[in-house]
Amino acid sequence: MAKIPYKIYLSEEEMPKYWYNMKAVMKELPAPFLNPATYKPCTAEELNQVFCSELVEQELNSSDRYIEIPEEIRNFYKMFRPSPLVRAYCLEKMLDTPAEIYYKFEGTNTSGSHKLNSAAAQVYYAKKQGLTNLTTETGAGQWGTALAMACAYYQIALTVYMVKVSAEQKPYRKAVIETYGGRVIPSPSDTTEIGRKILRENPNTGGSLGCAISEAIEVAMKTENSRYVLGSVLDHVLLHQSIIGQETKTACEKYEIQPDMIIGCAGGGSNFGGLIAPFMADKIEGKNKIEIIAVEPASCPSLTRGKFAYDFGDTGKTTPLMKMYTLGSGFIPSPNHAGGLRYHGMSPIISKLYQDGYLEARAVEQTKVFEAAIAFARCEGTLPAPESAHALKVAMDEAIKCKETGEKKTILFGLTGTGYFDLSAYMSYNNGSMTDYIPTDEDLEKGFATLPQVK
Amino acid sequence: MAKIPYKIYLSEEEMPKYWYNMKAVMKELPAPFLNPATYKPCTAEELNQVFCSELVEQELNSSDRYIEIPEEIRNFYKMFRPSPLVRAYCLEKMLDTPAEIYYKFEGTNTSGSHKLNSAAAQVYYAKKQGLTNLTTETGAGQWGTALAMACAYYQIALTVYMVKVSAEQKPYRKAVIETYGGRVIPSPSDTTEIGRKILRENPNTGGSLGCAISEAIEVAMKTENSRYVLGSVLDHVLLHQSIIGQETKTACEKYEIQPDMIIGCAGGGSNFGGLIAPFMADKIEGKNKIEIIAVEPASCPSLTRGKFAYDFGDTGKTTPLMKMYTLGSGFIPSPNHAGGLRYHGMSPIISKLYQDGYLEARAVEQTKVFEAAIAFARCEGTLPAPESAHALKVAMDEAIKCKETGEKKTILFGLTGTGYFDLSAYMSYNNGSMTDYIPTDEDLEKGFATLPQVK
Repeated sequence: MAKIPYKIYLSEEEMPKYWYNMKAVMKELPAPFLNPATYKPCTAEELNQVFCSELVEQELNSSDRYIEIPEEIRNFYKMFRPSPLVRAYCLEKMLDTPAEIYYKFEGTNTSGSHKLNSAAAQVYYAKKQGLTNLTTETGAGQWGTALAMACAYYQIALTVYMVKVSAEQKPYRKAVIETYGGRVIPSPSDTTEIGRKILRENPNTGGSLGCAISEAIEVAMKTENSRYVLGSVLDHVLLHQSIIGQETKTACEKYEIQPDMIIGCAGGGSNFGGLIAPFMADKIEGKNKIEIIAVEPASCPSLTRGKFAYDFGDTGKTTPLMKMYTLGSGFIPSPNHAGGLRYHGMSPIISKLYQDGYLEARAVEQTKVFEAAIAFARCEGTLPAPESAHALKVAMDEAIKCKETGEKKTILFGLTGTGYFDLSAYMSYNNGSMTDYIPTDEDLEKGFATLPQVK
Repeated sequence: MAKIPYKIYLSEEEMPKYWYNMKAVMKELPAPFLNPATYKPCTAEELNQVFCSELVEQELNSSDRYIEIPEEIRNFYKMFRPSPLVRAYCLEKMLDTPAEIYYKFEGTNTSGSHKLNSAAAQVYYAKKQGLTNLTTETGAGQWGTALAMACAYYQIALTVYMVKVSAEQKPYRKAVIETYGGRVIPSPSDTTEIGRKILRENPNTGGSLGCAISEAIEVAMKTENSRYVLGSVLDHVLLHQSIIGQETKTACEKYEIQPDMIIGCAGGGSNFGGLIAPFMADKIEGKNKIEIIAVEPASCPSLTRGKFAYDFGDTGKTTPLMKMYTLGSGFIPSPNHAGGLRYHGMSPIISKLYQDGYLEARAVEQTKVFEAAIAFARCEGTLPAPESAHALKVAMDEAIKCKETGEKKTILFGLTGTGYFDLSAYMSYNNGSMTDYIPTDEDLEKGFATLPQVK
C-alpha cells in the first residue's frame, strides 16, 4: 500500500450515487411520530401539509437500504464535494501517539458545514414539487446559510426566521443569507400570529429557536406553494447526510483504512448519523466491531443524562411528538454555553441506536473543547467549528490513551465545519472569560417537567 | 478526453516540487532596489538586516528558473494544497456563453486566501536561520492570519502591527491571529519610537499601513533574532506564489486545457504574479500567445493610470526604493473603497512585464465587482473575496463578449480567496450604500507629488 496522502479526495466517478438508509438495517425501528392532539401515529397526509412530499416519503421509508441520489443533486454536490478525508499527520506527531487519526472535513463550502448536503437535497425536491417558497428557522445561522445557497442555486424563494438576538449578534451571518437572496426576519416578528402574540406578551424578548420554528411553520402552512424545511433531527436529513459516511467508506476501502473507532459530535444528530451510516449498518449486521461514539456538550447532555421519551421537537410545542433522548423541550442550556449543539433532543434514529447499545455517548466541557480546538488549529491549520471540536476533543483523548497503552488504533472523526463565524466564542476562551456549566439534577428535573404525558 | 470534472485536484505526487522564477526568463530584468539615502543599489548585506538571508537570496536570484521547494515546505503545503482548479459549469450556463471558464481557487484554507503560500515559505526560512521572532504589519488581516498560522506550525513568535482602525473594525480578524498565537498590537502603538512620535503628534489617529510597516521594521531591527516579513510586492513573494501557477499548469496539461486568457486581480501583485508565472515564461519564450490581464480597482489604478518610477514601498518612506507602477506612496484611496487592492504601487516584476507589453491591465469599479461577485456566489456556491471578484468581473465580461462573437475561448482566472471576513462590504452593497470612486487627474497629481526625486 502506498503512503496515505494528507488528504484523500475521491474522483467524481468515485462519488457515491446512493444515500444509505440505516433504518432498512435496524433490527428495531424508531417509534413513529405521534400527533400531539390525538397521540396517534402521524400519517403521510398530515406530514405533507408541512413538508415536501418526497421528503415525507423518505422520512417514512424504512425498507430501502439504498436511495438513489438524483443526478441533479449529484451535480450540485460536485460543486462542493467530495469533501476530503484527511490524515492528521501533524496532530499525530504533536500528540506523539501510535494511533492513526483521520477526519472527514465538511467545512470547505461557504456555508462552512455539512448542512449544505441536506439543503441541496431538500430544495431540489421542493423545486420538483413545484413549490415556490420555503421557510425555515435558524439560530447560529449555518442552516440558514446552507439553505440560502441551495435556494439561490435552484432559484426558489426563502424566508428565514432568525432568532432575534442571534440576528443582532451575528450580523454577518444574516448578511451571508441575504447575499444569497434569502429574506431574513428576526423572530419573534409581526409577520405571524404567534410572533405578534409573543411580542404582545413580551415586547423585549430576544426570541428563541422554538418561537422561530413556530413562525416558520405558520407561514409555510398559510402560504400557497410553500413548505417548511428542517436542517437536522429528522430521518430524511440523516439520510441526506449519509453522503458523508458513504464517501468516507469509499475512501477507507480505497486506501485500506480500517477504523477502530468513529467519533462525531451530536446536536440534533444529523452529521453524526450521516457519518456513521454505512459503518453502523455493517456493525448491526455483524460485519465490523467499530466503536462508535457520539459526543455532546456537558451543558446539554441529551444522550448521557436525558430521558428516552416522546417529546416535542420545538419549545413552542407545535411539532409532532418524537420518541428520542431528550432533556425536555423546556430545557434551556446555560447562556454561557458557546459551543453549539444546544438542541434539547436527539435524532430518533440515533436515540434508538443508543438505546439498543450500538453506540456510546460522551459529554465534554466546553473549555476543554476549545483547548483541543486551538491545539488542532495550530498544528493542522484549520480552525474548527466549536461543534466539530467536541468530536476532536474525544479523538485526541483516545489518541492519548493509545500513547499510554501502546495501542495502534485507527481513529476517525467528523470535522463538520469551520469556526470563522464563531470567533466571539474563541475570543471568550482566549481572554479567559469562558466558563463551564454542568446542569445539576435539579436543573434537569425542570426540563423533564416539560415532557408531555403521552398515554 | 474524458469530461472535465467540476473540480480538478492534483494528487500529492503530481504537486509541483519547484517554484518558477520568472526573472530567469525575462528579457530585461526589473531595476534594482535603491538605498533611499544614497540612490545606490541595495546590497544583500543591507537587505539581510531586515529580511531573512535565504529570502534575500531568492529576492536577488535572477538566474535559476526553477527553485526547489524544500520538503518541509511541501509537507506544509500538503495540509492545504493542492488547491482545486474548478470548471465553472454553472457560471457558463448562467451566462449562456460558448466560452469555457476555469478558476484556480485559493480560498480553502483558514487564512482564506493565497497568502499562506508565501507565509509557509517565509517562516520556514526564518526558523531554519535560527530566528525566534518575526514582525509584520496587516491591514485587512489576511496576511496576518496566514503568517500566524505558519508561525504556529513552525513554533516561532509573531508580532503583528495591525492598523488600529482595522483592529477595531475587524475584531474577528484580530481574534483569529491571536487564536493561532500571534501577538496583535494596534498601530500606532507606544511600543516603538515611530509609534510614540505619531501618537504625540496625532493622539486620535486610526493608523495607516505605512505606519504599521514602520513599527514592524523598527521592532525587527531592534530585537535579537528577529526579522520583518512582507506578504506581497517583493520578488521572493511572487516566487512562492508561483505554486499557484505551477499547479494550474500541471492540471491544464493533464486535462488538455489550453487557456486563451488568464486573468488575475492585482494589488501588490503576488497572487497575479504567482498565477501567471509558468504561462508568462512560456509566452516570453514564444511558446504561447495567452492574453494575460491584470485587474485593479478603478479607485486605485496603479497600472492603468500610475507612473513607472522609483518609489517607496510604504507611506512612511522607510523602505528601499523600487521601480514600479505607482500612484505615489502618498496616494490614499477613497475611504469608500471596500474592495481591497488598495496598495499604491505594484510588484516590480509585474510592473516591468507590463511596461514591456507582456500583459494588459484593466480597472473596474467596485459596484460592478460586487454585482459580479454575488451573481457568481449564487450560481457557483462560493462567496468570493472582493479582491478576487475583480478578476471574476473581467472573466465574466470576456465570457459575455464570447457570447456576442460566438468565440469558444478558454478563460482562466484566479479566485484568490473567500469573502467571509468581508461581509460588511457585501452589506453596504446589498443595502445600496456602496458608491464608486474614480480619482480625478488632480487627485492623482497629489499622489505623484509624493514620488521621490531620484537622481
